[in-house]
Amino acid sequence: MNALPTELLRQAQQLSEEVTRPIPGSRKIHVEGSRPDLQVPMREIALSPTPRMYGIQEPNAPFCTYDTSGPYTDPDATIDLAAGLSALRAQWIADRGDCAPLEGLSSEFGRSRADDAKLDAVRFPALRPPRRALAGRNVSQMHYARRGIVTPEMEYIAIRENQRIEAITEAHLLQRHPGESFGASLPGLITPEFVRDEVARGRAIIPANINHPEIEPMIIGRNFLTKVNANIGNSAVSSGIAEEVEKLVYAIRWGADTVMDLSTGKHIHETREWIIRNSPVPIGTVPIYQALEKVDGKAEDLTWDIFRDTLIEQAEQGVDYFTIHAGVLLRYVPLTAKRVTGIVSRGGSILAKWCLAHHKENFLYTHFEEICEIMKAYDVSFSLGDGLRPGCIADANDAAQFGELETLGELTKIAWKHDVQTMIEGPGHVPMQLIKENMDKQLRECGEAPFYTLGPLTTDIAPGYDHITSAIGAAMIGWFGTAMLCYVTPKEHLGLPNKADVREGLMAYRIAAHAADLAKGHPAAQARDNALSKARFEFRWEDQFNLGLDPERAREYHDETLPKDAHKVAHFCSMCGPHFCSMKITQDVREYAAGKGVADEARALEEGMAEKAAEFRAQGAQVYRRD
Amino acid sequence: MNALPTELLRQAQQLSEEVTRPIPGSRKIHVEGSRPDLQVPMREIALSPTPRMYGIQEPNAPFCTYDTSGPYTDPDATIDLAAGLSALRAQWIADRGDCAPLEGLSSEFGRSRADDAKLDAVRFPALRPPRRALAGRNVSQMHYARRGIVTPEMEYIAIRENQRIEAITEAHLLQRHPGESFGASLPGLITPEFVRDEVARGRAIIPANINHPEIEPMIIGRNFLTKVNANIGNSAVSSGIAEEVEKLVYAIRWGADTVMDLSTGKHIHETREWIIRNSPVPIGTVPIYQALEKVDGKAEDLTWDIFRDTLIEQAEQGVDYFTIHAGVLLRYVPLTAKRVTGIVSRGGSILAKWCLAHHKENFLYTHFEEICEIMKAYDVSFSLGDGLRPGCIADANDAAQFGELETLGELTKIAWKHDVQTMIEGPGHVPMQLIKENMDKQLRECGEAPFYTLGPLTTDIAPGYDHITSAIGAAMIGWFGTAMLCYVTPKEHLGLPNKADVREGLMAYRIAAHAADLAKGHPAAQARDNALSKARFEFRWEDQFNLGLDPERAREYHDETLPKDAHKVAHFCSMCGPHFCSMKITQDVREYAAGKGVADEARALEEGMAEKAAEFRAQGAQVYRRD
Repeated sequence: MNALPTELLRQAQQLSEEVTRPIPGSRKIHVEGSRPDLQVPMREIALSPTPRMYGIQEPNAPFCTYDTSGPYTDPDATIDLAAGLSALRAQWIADRGDCAPLEGLSSEFGRSRADDAKLDAVRFPALRPPRRALAGRNVSQMHYARRGIVTPEMEYIAIRENQRIEAITEAHLLQRHPGESFGASLPGLITPEFVRDEVARGRAIIPANINHPEIEPMIIGRNFLTKVNANIGNSAVSSGIAEEVEKLVYAIRWGADTVMDLSTGKHIHETREWIIRNSPVPIGTVPIYQALEKVDGKAEDLTWDIFRDTLIEQAEQGVDYFTIHAGVLLRYVPLTAKRVTGIVSRGGSILAKWCLAHHKENFLYTHFEEICEIMKAYDVSFSLGDGLRPGCIADANDAAQFGELETLGELTKIAWKHDVQTMIEGPGHVPMQLIKENMDKQLRECGEAPFYTLGPLTTDIAPGYDHITSAIGAAMIGWFGTAMLCYVTPKEHLGLPNKADVREGLMAYRIAAHAADLAKGHPAAQARDNALSKARFEFRWEDQFNLGLDPERAREYHDETLPKDAHKVAHFCSMCGPHFCSMKITQDVREYAAGKGVADEARALEEGMAEKAAEFRAQGAQVYRRD
Repeated sequence: MNALPTELLRQAQQLSEEVTRPIPGSRKIHVEGSRPDLQVPMREIALSPTPRMYGIQEPNAPFCTYDTSGPYTDPDATIDLAAGLSALRAQWIADRGDCAPLEGLSSEFGRSRADDAKLDAVRFPALRPPRRALAGRNVSQMHYARRGIVTPEMEYIAIRENQRIEAITEAHLLQRHPGESFGASLPGLITPEFVRDEVARGRAIIPANINHPEIEPMIIGRNFLTKVNANIGNSAVSSGIAEEVEKLVYAIRWGADTVMDLSTGKHIHETREWIIRNSPVPIGTVPIYQALEKVDGKAEDLTWDIFRDTLIEQAEQGVDYFTIHAGVLLRYVPLTAKRVTGIVSRGGSILAKWCLAHHKENFLYTHFEEICEIMKAYDVSFSLGDGLRPGCIADANDAAQFGELETLGELTKIAWKHDVQTMIEGPGHVPMQLIKENMDKQLRECGEAPFYTLGPLTTDIAPGYDHITSAIGAAMIGWFGTAMLCYVTPKEHLGLPNKADVREGLMAYRIAAHAADLAKGHPAAQARDNALSKARFEFRWEDQFNLGLDPERAREYHDETLPKDAHKVAHFCSMCGPHFCSMKITQDVREYAAGKGVADEARALEEGMAEKAAEFRAQGAQVYRRD
């Protein structure tokens, strides 16, 4: 860690204004569910009225959007990183009566860190005792779902996914194209019962460790809004604790639905604690990274005991999902030898090395049922890792990748036998014509368990722009059925992302996810496009900025060309200048067509329009008619 | 214009180093065709050998790529903007004996500008007399093609499209996935005869005005590499002549295959002359913009005579293709009245306004055959404009858009009757599930004439990031068969692009075009991905940067994390640090599998591998084995 302990504590008092300032033009609201402690956050964007010059002045109702940013963007919230977020699910978890707080930590490593006084200065100060399922109990959301129980989490999610679409009354906002969902089952309105049913069937997961009561529940499944994950994490080369928490808050500001902490450096345990305690979104990890650190980076020295202890350590901190590379089987490893880029997954290559060194089957595979026992005691979800994913176009859809995917399908069924929530990780680098085959095979092999893909990148030739090469693949695979997209930043293949890269990566992926939702026909997706386009057409510049994914960037770009505030209400585009605006000309066409009763042009033509044409010209036919 | 005349001439002496410095790691080469004056430019990227630690050290042959940058990136070339580029096609054009230089300009407006002494200071100094076809002759490449003539331009294009794939001997570079081309006909190697045949059939165009002999010929058609267009141009709000020439050179540096000059401001005629004389790529324009300026912005005052004079004025300057909105028919206009964003094409709205004001049919439609006569006298290609393209997701694929497309199909057949080269413009804003319908309908209605689309943007909600929203749609429609993609910059909907925006837009579109080529199975596409990925796997950092679309950006990003030069030869990725590199671990797996004969793992398992496992460990099993 770069920061001195005192420096850390100082930094922990305050996030930068850049990551916490309210998002322009909107306010945080909470939609109450069936009980007073069920308060679903949304962001409500205030809209200005349609100006008088375009006909009758009419108000535009505020527009609600999904909000991942947690309390950080709420000016009324008090943020104290050293205290952590409030535990909004604590009562729900306690009420279920199937788990209890422990006397102390169950993992050996966790205890050794707790006992090490040297760590006091970097330790998260407000630790609470971990909870675990009572003996013989299963605390997974899937377990409840299969027993017919609609949890508060499920109700919360139903409200959240609908984004108050049911409150919209303007017909033009509800207008939408039929989607093509490739066999997904998108209901017109999402009900708590629908959420329960999807979780019970394994088609969706609610990552929600009982030791992470701070989360605002969310769901990952192909019949819900497409989600986006952002990776953060320090490494030997870079980044300290305070910096990672700042990145977390920045990531959720720009729309990360979950965050993976991929730290591999020093103080990995303490960094994770700070992140989880301050995260309103589910946190995922790759436990093998930490396990490897415990054996000084020697993959061949890894053991089941060390790994098991790591799972428990992290589960008791509150990690919501674990990437487990249990599909990297010994027999698949040599299938990668002739690849152009071999094995590019860190977890995959660690396990490949272990398998070859011992000439034994992957211990994650042989101990898979024991892992399930741990998962269900805390409700940690599986993210079954694709350790053999292709690292370049040439290696896409090969025998190693698809062999592993078949094994992940087999493991999914085992996890489901234990009522453990499961999603499946996918590639990687795949040219466009091979993307659908990935999705179809995943759905088939894994019984519609949610797919969670990295990109895929659709070409290898653009280092520095892989957020774009991969947003193309992400939008497509999201459309085909992928439930969550793992972002890629511009630094992919080149370096570690900084804060600016996190924003660029998230924007590319929010675009991909939304494009996918539109194409699938998600009921609440197109309303925002319609609202923004109407604002654009009516030159409501501020509304256009605020309805966009990044109001700050939109405003900044507009100001570069037309910096004056007066131009925000200008009735022309900054591209064409005041005398040459197609939007304005169109408006004239519309007024003319409406005012003169020529909406039915066929009829109008019959009536002979020469006279009307003369009238139009006599009126001025001007772009800037004042009324 | 912002610049003072003296300032302009000073600026014209020199482009900035930023736009002309050689592209790192490569040099300009010329591949000679069947005659000494047929020299096809390419960029040859030097590669370092595969390092010894990965087996036998072996050289990597230099890699050739398509190069749009003209002589500007050639340190041996002498650039004088005030003299213009050398007229490399001049002799080819003269040799055909079907056109002759004119005494003076044929257009009234052109003559009035030539006679206006006040313009001397901003006029391009080295004007040459324009050429025109002899009476009764047709100088279009389509006309030659249909008469069985393979022009030097066609041979040039065949060499250029192949990118020297025929010289590659390394099998791993030639490895590629079967493409899915949706009925395109991609040959294994492109011959001059194939080029001729495609142009004759109207499936491809070679924009090449006889008054633009400076161009390096290129082709637009679905059976060739997907092309990218960049728009530049000043407006009332911004930008002067020197700035536009600088943007042109920057655009071709980053891969623009053609450039459209969309200027609407003052000195539109003189700006265009500077641009054409210094452009090695075809230049397109939208003549109606200038025609409108001639009537002080009053659409209803436009006349056929003014428009005709504008076409001739621009054709004699050397514009290679004209956007002509001849499909905006009177009966389609009212179909836009209930749209969310009406008519968003500038040209479309001008003509809609004209049609309504006069209640007559669009004069471009009624005079279409006269336009064809002008086109074939100079070999200007049609880009039939989609004036009714959708401006938002809600308006996609509606009756107005598709009605116009049907009319464009009708006009294509008329143009072909005159042997006038023709492409068709397409949308716009289209959600993913509706993109293919656009392509399929275009192919059907327009007899496979090349499609030239703006994006499409796959969502409306990301102002500030529309290069990404649209790169997704562009990659897909390129895959489906679009021949040229018109770029969109991050400033779309917000402001005029500056130089940095031009680069961002082009990179997004080069990615989309290449992803499309890969997916279609273009024979020369995947080799570059393979070369780059091999370099990446072998930690040949410099090669990875230089094989990428933007070597400067890749290097800069890498340097942010690991700035020292030593790290460019580091055998680890900057993401993971020296002790945790999956690429390196994979290399161990590969060496092991190869060295110990376990490539056939099934057999290896049978033999019992415990002993070999022990050996592997005894060797160190280290990431950093030195040899």
